[in-house]
Amino acid sequence: STTYRILVLPGDHVGPEVMTEALKVLDVVEECQPGLRFERDSDLVGGCSIDAHGVPVTDAVLEKAAKSDAVLFGSVGGPEWTNAHPNPESGLLQLRQRLDAFANLRPCEVFIPSLVDASPIKADLVLGTKFVVVRENCGGAYFGQKVEEPDIASDLWVYTKREVERCCRVSAAVARMLGRNGDGQGGGGPAIVWSADKANVLASGRLWRKVTQNIFDEEFPDIELRHQLADSMAMLMVKNPRGFNGVVHTDNTFGDILSDISGGITGTLGILPSASISGIPGEGRCNGIYEPVHGSAPDISGKGIVNPVAQILSLAMMLRYSFHLTREAAAIEDAVTRILNSKEAGGMDIRTADMGGKASTTEIGDAICDAL
Amino acid sequence: STTYRILVLPGDHVGPEVMTEALKVLDVVEECQPGLRFERDSDLVGGCSIDAHGVPVTDAVLEKAAKSDAVLFGSVGGPEWTNAHPNPESGLLQLRQRLDAFANLRPCEVFIPSLVDASPIKADLVLGTKFVVVRENCGGAYFGQKVEEPDIASDLWVYTKREVERCCRVSAAVARMLGRNGDGQGGGGPAIVWSADKANVLASGRLWRKVTQNIFDEEFPDIELRHQLADSMAMLMVKNPRGFNGVVHTDNTFGDILSDISGGITGTLGILPSASISGIPGEGRCNGIYEPVHGSAPDISGKGIVNPVAQILSLAMMLRYSFHLTREAAAIEDAVTRILNSKEAGGMDIRTADMGGKASTTEIGDAICDAL
Ligand SMILES: CC(C)[C@H](C(=O)O)[C@@H](O)C(=O)O
Ligand SMILES: CC(C)[C@H](C(=O)O)[C@@H](O)C(=O)O
Repeated sequence: STTYRILVLPGDHVGPEVMTEALKVLDVVEECQPGLRFERDSDLVGGCSIDAHGVPVTDAVLEKAAKSDAVLFGSVGGPEWTNAHPNPESGLLQLRQRLDAFANLRPCEVFIPSLVDASPIKADLVLGTKFVVVRENCGGAYFGQKVEEPDIASDLWVYTKREVERCCRVSAAVARMLGRNGDGQGGGGPAIVWSADKANVLASGRLWRKVTQNIFDEEFPDIELRHQLADSMAMLMVKNPRGFNGVVHTDNTFGDILSDISGGITGTLGILPSASISGIPGEGRCNGIYEPVHGSAPDISGKGIVNPVAQILSLAMMLRYSFHLTREAAAIEDAVTRILNSKEAGGMDIRTADMGGKASTTEIGDAICDAL
Repeated sequence: STTYRILVLPGDHVGPEVMTEALKVLDVVEECQPGLRFERDSDLVGGCSIDAHGVPVTDAVLEKAAKSDAVLFGSVGGPEWTNAHPNPESGLLQLRQRLDAFANLRPCEVFIPSLVDASPIKADLVLGTKFVVVRENCGGAYFGQKVEEPDIASDLWVYTKREVERCCRVSAAVARMLGRNGDGQGGGGPAIVWSADKANVLASGRLWRKVTQNIFDEEFPDIELRHQLADSMAMLMVKNPRGFNGVVHTDNTFGDILSDISGGITGTLGILPSASISGIPGEGRCNGIYEPVHGSAPDISGKGIVNPVAQILSLAMMLRYSFHLTREAAAIEDAVTRILNSKEAGGMDIRTADMGGKASTTEIGDAICDAL
């Protein structure tokens, strides 16, 4: 039997609530597949780590993360730590950096009626949306040198050729897996890669564009690459979300914004998972951080109403990208789809409030476990 | 009689097409108001300036701009100049810098049925949207020191306290003019100011937030200020555009993206004007650059189908912000509304293709002149 070692970092506020549900789902996978064992260690990150240790992540936790096969992450932050230095979020940033989890994958799909209902976009425009944002995750303005004085402050938005290159290789691998049909099996050949930058203004944007073009010319001549200015892309994603079906390849700052627009398109961040990985998908096991796109949502925490779907789909991404358990990942995704679609299929409405339903966090988790 | 001196810079591709219509509208204003004279000088900027002079803007044009009362700007760029160094866009950036046009105002409203039709957002969510993005325009990553080498490139995302402060004063003035009712006359007291930053990640973002909070505490205690993370704001603007009615106060980079999301909300950039001003609205005349939010749209240029509304509304902003001709500005805005709403009011459909109509650029311009 194979054993995978997972570090579980629930974090703050709704983090532990959604994590509980994801771990229940993992239990079911383990029960159904006696050949698989998921060894779990749990620890603190974010505000709760500040309270316990004075820092948002301890060196010990960073080392544990580096030694595990994958990190399942909840969410961090909250009004209690507004004045904390460093802040809870920097725990997450340190973790990304320690694992060199340089590529952040954020899929967005709208393919069933209940997702169309929840979307603010007109149904005929949004149905059939399916893209994956691949966001560079360890460089750019997030990690460049900072100056912080009372009257002046700066962040260095810096990229090296190597950082852009390796992100290109991930985007290309995702384009091959996704496929132009969006079937996740490479159907129709590789999906289009849309690269977003501000090459008309930023030096780092010009490097991004040049290096990306070169890598695709040299290594992936069969993949269609298109460049788009990041501002214009933000506009077009709202106007015609299906227009970017495929892979959106972009830097850390623009990726942060563009992937939140995904939440605008679906109408809720509560269903959007993410994977921050340290290697090229399909090229051997790699460590990664798996976390919902949503934050710690202090306004609804403790009420048992947060949507656990993003965390559960993040778990599925972990099985797929860090462990290559494709079948198990697909089974979870399928169970989630059936639950979200339950009402339309003539069953009960099993959705949380963010999607217009009334179900509790636990009810969703249980239903997904049953469906599985 | 009062004379205003305007420098007209049509630029490239659709720039001259929309400018022709805006100048026709200005002629009408002049005819109706014999006390007003608009002295116009015209010159090159962008790609056409590169072709003629080897640079996207000459020193002579920059000096002329500085000496005029306002600059009416079309749009610059196109595939012909992809490899030009400096590029056409840098002509615009130099102009912003030369005039110290530090605050970029970009209103977004959806208030009549034909605008709701054109929007990708569901009607019940989008109707009644009315906000103004106030984007810092002369600082941040756009103008910080750049390094551009083959293997590494960077932009310094830097803000000083003074730069943030003066932008706050513009946002406050706009909030007072706009009013909480959005009536443009301060009705209901000052509108809410939403400040967007990434204070959880960027040093410049923390400065932005701290300075903004201080200025509003000290100088505008009666104005409601709320902070929002820029990524989350992008999401919420799509999900619930009316939720940010008021003023969106933000930095150069985030403002670039968030104001393009406005174009996503309206479904077209073709109706969105902008003003880049060098002083506080209401505190005396100030120079400014008035330009549509859309670019030079090479794909549709030369066909006579581009929407001139954004350029015409930019002209109205010039009358309002640089010349304090409030009545004249309102008359133009009113004429535009009537034309866009013509079909719903039982008349002809007078809209360009981007809004689902069939009218030509000239037809729209003529109709607006007639309505005026
Ligand atoms: C919490 C924050 C540091 C983080 C980021 O900006 O990367 C979040 O917004 C995200 O997108 O994962
Ligand atoms: C053309 C470009 C330099 C410009 C910008 O990025 O500021 C444009 O996108 C805008 O928003 O006015």
